Amino acid sequence: MQDFIFGVLPSETQRLKQVMDNRSGVTHRQLRIPFDPEPGQPVTLELTVGPDFLCDRAWVYWTSHGEDPAGHMGSITTGSCTEMEFVGSEWDTPLWGYLRRFRAVLPGQPAGSVVRYRIGAAGHRSEEVLADDGAVYSYYVDCDPAPEWVREAVVYHIFVDRFYPGKGQAWLNPDSLSGFFGGRLKGITEKLDYLVDLGVTVLWLSPVFPSPTHHGYDASDYMDIEPRLGTKADLRELLDKAHQKGMRVLLDLVPNHWSSLHSTFQQAISDPNSPYREWYSFTDWPDQYECFFGNKEMPKVNLSNPAARKYMLDAVAYWLEFGVDGFRVDHAVGPVADFWADFRRVTRSVKPDSWTFGEVTDPPNVQMLFGNGMDGCLDFVLTEALRETFMYGVWCGPRLADFLDRHDAWFPPAFSRPSFLDNHDMNRFLWKVGGDQRRLRLAAMCQFTLPGQPVIYHGTEVGLSQKHDVHEPGRGLEEARLPHPWGEQQDQSLLAYYRALIALRRSQPLLQNGRRETIGFGEDGLAYTLSSPDAEEHQRFLVVLNLSGETRQQVFAGKWSPALITGAECQAVETNEGTEISLAPWGGMILHSRDMPQ
Amino acid sequence: MQDFIFGVLPSETQRLKQVMDNRSGVTHRQLRIPFDPEPGQPVTLELTVGPDFLCDRAWVYWTSHGEDPAGHMGSITTGSCTEMEFVGSEWDTPLWGYLRRFRAVLPGQPAGSVVRYRIGAAGHRSEEVLADDGAVYSYYVDCDPAPEWVREAVVYHIFVDRFYPGKGQAWLNPDSLSGFFGGRLKGITEKLDYLVDLGVTVLWLSPVFPSPTHHGYDASDYMDIEPRLGTKADLRELLDKAHQKGMRVLLDLVPNHWSSLHSTFQQAISDPNSPYREWYSFTDWPDQYECFFGNKEMPKVNLSNPAARKYMLDAVAYWLEFGVDGFRVDHAVGPVADFWADFRRVTRSVKPDSWTFGEVTDPPNVQMLFGNGMDGCLDFVLTEALRETFMYGVWCGPRLADFLDRHDAWFPPAFSRPSFLDNHDMNRFLWKVGGDQRRLRLAAMCQFTLPGQPVIYHGTEVGLSQKHDVHEPGRGLEEARLPHPWGEQQDQSLLAYYRALIALRRSQPLLQNGRRETIGFGEDGLAYTLSSPDAEEHQRFLVVLNLSGETRQQVFAGKWSPALITGAECQAVETNEGTEISLAPWGGMILHSRDMPQ
Repeated sequence: MQDFIFGVLPSETQRLKQVMDNRSGVTHRQLRIPFDPEPGQPVTLELTVGPDFLCDRAWVYWTSHGEDPAGHMGSITTGSCTEMEFVGSEWDTPLWGYLRRFRAVLPGQPAGSVVRYRIGAAGHRSEEVLADDGAVYSYYVDCDPAPEWVREAVVYHIFVDRFYPGKGQAWLNPDSLSGFFGGRLKGITEKLDYLVDLGVTVLWLSPVFPSPTHHGYDASDYMDIEPRLGTKADLRELLDKAHQKGMRVLLDLVPNHWSSLHSTFQQAISDPNSPYREWYSFTDWPDQYECFFGNKEMPKVNLSNPAARKYMLDAVAYWLEFGVDGFRVDHAVGPVADFWADFRRVTRSVKPDSWTFGEVTDPPNVQMLFGNGMDGCLDFVLTEALRETFMYGVWCGPRLADFLDRHDAWFPPAFSRPSFLDNHDMNRFLWKVGGDQRRLRLAAMCQFTLPGQPVIYHGTEVGLSQKHDVHEPGRGLEEARLPHPWGEQQDQSLLAYYRALIALRRSQPLLQNGRRETIGFGEDGLAYTLSSPDAEEHQRFLVVLNLSGETRQQVFAGKWSPALITGAECQAVETNEGTEISLAPWGGMILHSRDMPQ
Repeated sequence: MQDFIFGVLPSETQRLKQVMDNRSGVTHRQLRIPFDPEPGQPVTLELTVGPDFLCDRAWVYWTSHGEDPAGHMGSITTGSCTEMEFVGSEWDTPLWGYLRRFRAVLPGQPAGSVVRYRIGAAGHRSEEVLADDGAVYSYYVDCDPAPEWVREAVVYHIFVDRFYPGKGQAWLNPDSLSGFFGGRLKGITEKLDYLVDLGVTVLWLSPVFPSPTHHGYDASDYMDIEPRLGTKADLRELLDKAHQKGMRVLLDLVPNHWSSLHSTFQQAISDPNSPYREWYSFTDWPDQYECFFGNKEMPKVNLSNPAARKYMLDAVAYWLEFGVDGFRVDHAVGPVADFWADFRRVTRSVKPDSWTFGEVTDPPNVQMLFGNGMDGCLDFVLTEALRETFMYGVWCGPRLADFLDRHDAWFPPAFSRPSFLDNHDMNRFLWKVGGDQRRLRLAAMCQFTLPGQPVIYHGTEVGLSQKHDVHEPGRGLEEARLPHPWGEQQDQSLLAYYRALIALRRSQPLLQNGRRETIGFGEDGLAYTLSSPDAEEHQRFLVVLNLSGETRQQVFAGKWSPALITGAECQAVETNEGTEISLAPWGGMILHSRDMPQ
């Protein structure tokens, strides 16, 4: 990894510590099979007991109608209790002791059930120890794949304050990049035709709720719109018009925390008897409380409190009913684990074809844990891989190919993995490559031929860059949030390329989910075919990417015609042996098989 | 762990490094299921490819008649090739990448087969990488449980130079503890009646081959007897008389290395054209070569060389034919992995009821890898657990009970796990507890009621201790090798206790392999029953151990009668509620259920 941070495990030491912690205690960590059960499917739960916990019995306390299960030492107060079976021990060298493994099977449940459970373990006459420090887990039972419209989704990520102020409105001129630039919902509505022309199908808006900051990731109210950005009527108009034009709109939801200006927090800190005190986690009222990465202006919401949870779920239902099509969920690892089944129940019951995906910067083993409560997660390790390869030039072509194979094998096919080259929290790709658009085009060509739904961070398509590194002393993530260029500021050539790329992906299902097979193009290149798993289907695509600063040629077997090129110097010529493909430095090409219907 | 070293992984850092290494490369590490196949049973082999190895194909090259398999990139030269199947990827957080998992199934083979294999993996047009640095593995196919006589085995571990010089012979008076004290084979033969009285069933002799050292773990010839210790005729007499008295005799075998005085080594370093050069691993002939932990007087034998391997196997066959009943195998992790199937073939074909177990100081996951080539391994982690509990007093009773449950669950029941409280390479138990025999008796009572075959290091039964810590500057392991006391030097009370303990274990199969169930006796104690898995069988034993310096009483349900006590102040009294057991400080008792036939 290079200069930007993916998650909270930057060093090997921290990662090893996490692994050791996960094995040394009484841990479940949502190890259940299947993870996302269908109606009637039994679910196997696994438990590990480290060497220091002298537990030889374990129980699952569970309910199937959403109540909080309660029990102790195998006796239940609320719900059911299933004793876990000891299935064996396993020597663990780093811990220098044996792990105990337990297993229990919970019966299948009807569609729409929320199963909630906790696990306890105890030894002979010893105190009960709750797995994962007493965590309550839950899962929602339903056949609930992502809606069909997600398959060809191309997402456009709008940082609202920086997109467009609206006709006749100039950008504001704040003192710093963390001031207000004046982008508004109306501005987005006015630019819908631009987005239709671009070809994107889904708009993801950065937070639009009332908030004191330019980014909005600290709402003071979840039931209204920030006046700087517009009104509910403005959002209504945006939604209606976008829907008319065939686009969907996602809001950015932050269930983990909100602004200290939120009225419930203000009451909680001013009135010791306020019921809202329980909406937060005070360690020393009123000054000390859990908050977002130490930021006291962003208190963490206690979603274990039923009223706080209801408020959050009501907001989710409200905006879905209002007309939004789903959510990008900020910092999804923050809320308590058992929030997500309720979240899923609400999203699926209010709007069955809504789409939600999480921001989970933890690695894929953690992302998998969101496959029941949401449709998937933003694909951070793919971003890392694409940047290592196309931006830093650290990974060779075969390494990226190998990574892609393993990455696809890890996730279930139904798991949504929206892909991105950059976002509002990291240096823009184009800036990091010193403005070398060839690399951006090449990376995007790769991104748009992978199974994840491509996300374009607004501005990328017209050459928006930045002025300083986000990690430069005195600078910050705002460097990657410059206002969107309009008119002559836009790079029309790049825009045309993005339009073509989007159009090609949307029109060709093989580019969305074809079976990828790597073929050789040396260390400095990457070539793969995309074909149908259906053997009767002869359509195929070939993607060839030159990862070097040299022109490169190679003959590929078969007859191929260019469908898209990154730049003019790339060409394909038919020869006796097949098709000779010649690529400019950092050039790439998507080709289709000749016998394919146009 | 306290002051003595179990194996080569003393620190967490080293252990973590080993785990990381095992995952990051192209590794098999003998992960096969079943590990010890029976005739006709297919064997599944698993392979892991770390993130840095871009391998998407893998092959097993194998033979079933003992030849060395040879092949490359899926083409074979000798034997068969089975392509491995990619079965999935797994995210690994410490390595920050995905592991690839491959699997292949080798067909079942007839009894007596030695299957030999190596594994290679490669990526698209890349070089083949051999798993585990090119290691060759093998397994011997047969139904070969340890012989029946092992079930009630009680092993007596004799350090030959220190046991008995023979009638009329005085101990020698060497300058240091690493000199010769004059113990001889004849001396052992003369003391067979002592050993019969003691009740032990198996003698394990420290190395008896010609050697320049007092310990003999560096033989200069594997086909003769060290003259100081006696002659082949002396060993013949010892074997014959021991067998007549119903005892078995094991030799100590060191396949990994021998003395630099060995004639083949002398030829190898003096003649550059000697065929014996290949019997060793010279890195810079004749001065630099692989040896035992840097000790140049103990060159490592290259058992991959067919002639060297044949010499070693011939020696194994020779001594089995001579009449010995098996081997304790020194430093079994040293020889190349594929030696062991040949070793097993020879031991089982020459003497089907021989017993062999390894000295493997690595933890149980490594010990398991010797379950095909031998009957089992000396139980080092049990020694650690018993010493932590009874010697250092660091582990409480429930912790030991919990460990024992996990330990038993890990190993297959057929795996021999000879148990010991101390040996010639660590401080004697009695010395470490300051001569407190109560603790030794208590530890031995526990040892003798566990499934592993108890080993007594000679002298322990008569109170032999030592004068200095083995880790004291200027001292060494020899401190734990003082000569055996005879006559009035012997502690008759302790000897009588050991006799009773051995007799009880031998007469009661439930003490050898009863189903152990822990019952409560507080933090400072340990109590468990031993019963038959056969529900019809009502015989039961109760073992109660007081781990404190206080007298302790407790009523146990049921009627129990003492079968053995560690000291006079321990008693059992029938009460209305059951049996009240009163134990002196560090006292213990074995009881049998009243309705049990005597």
